[in-house]
Amino acid sequence: MTTKTTTTETTTTETTTSIVEESTFLKELVLQVRAQDHYGVYRTWKDELVIANFVVSKEKKSKISVEGDVDPATQLRILCFYRAIAVCIEKQTGKLCQVVTDLSHEGFGWAIVWTGRLVVLSRTLRDAQRFGYPSLKKLAAQGERLVESGIKTVEKFPDAADG
Amino acid sequence: MTTKTTTTETTTTETTTSIVEESTFLKELVLQVRAQDHYGVYRTWKDELVIANFVVSKEKKSKISVEGDVDPATQLRILCFYRAIAVCIEKQTGKLCQVVTDLSHEGFGWAIVWTGRLVVLSRTLRDAQRFGYPSLKKLAAQGERLVESGIKTVEKFPDAADG
Repeated sequence: MTTKTTTTETTTTETTTSIVEESTFLKELVLQVRAQDHYGVYRTWKDELVIANFVVSKEKKSKISVEGDVDPATQLRILCFYRAIAVCIEKQTGKLCQVVTDLSHEGFGWAIVWTGRLVVLSRTLRDAQRFGYPSLKKLAAQGERLVESGIKTVEKFPDAADG
Repeated sequence: MTTKTTTTETTTTETTTSIVEESTFLKELVLQVRAQDHYGVYRTWKDELVIANFVVSKEKKSKISVEGDVDPATQLRILCFYRAIAVCIEKQTGKLCQVVTDLSHEGFGWAIVWTGRLVVLSRTLRDAQRFGYPSLKKLAAQGERLVESGIKTVEKFPDAADG
């Protein structure tokens, strides 16, 4: 029985780890989340488990109320998501990027990534209480899409980026 | 006795009102604060009284602790200050400006004003609990200085501002 369980676990881990391994963005996201782990709770956790909370199914989303404040853990996840994007852009363009997230108590707000005088990325946030993606694969795809678009913006406005 | 008091009051009001009247920035700031006055408390107040809380003497500042959270009223004042700057820049350049303030619980953070892809103004905030200026005159001067610098930035990077 014990042997069987171990085998199953290993298989699952291998499949999921490869997603994180394959995506520069997810690797960066894992680093961002681990950086917040002041008490070493995640120390022994696998990468995919560390970012498992970024996956929120449609069903689960519909059960999260958008009435109250945004949960501090969700706020931190949103910040980690945009920080990971900022670091990826930074590594590929050599421009130091800053991140700001501003959320109202109703879950509306902004996420801004900028470098010098250039807004590399600006996104309005809505129903932030429900922040999450249907799968790690979609999370990676969205992160990489935003990184790509940020890099293009830096290339388009080099003067403002240096300003 | 009554006559005397009235005279003094009138004189004070006249002197102080002229500061608000003379400054486009202060006029805008008054509008921003009045816009937050959902219950009409300030309806009968003079302009200089509406923004009186933006004046914090050095002595008073030293008495405000920077240990805890930033008071919501202070947070709102900081937001009004940068919104007034944004509106002044908007009126003179014709570019729609957005404002974001991001404050940590320790009173550190950022205030960002941007239009299109251009960061018109970015300031680090520090000891935000003590936000305020020594006098209305200095408040006006600082506001106008930031508006000037913002307009120059828009003129310097027109492509990014339209981007």
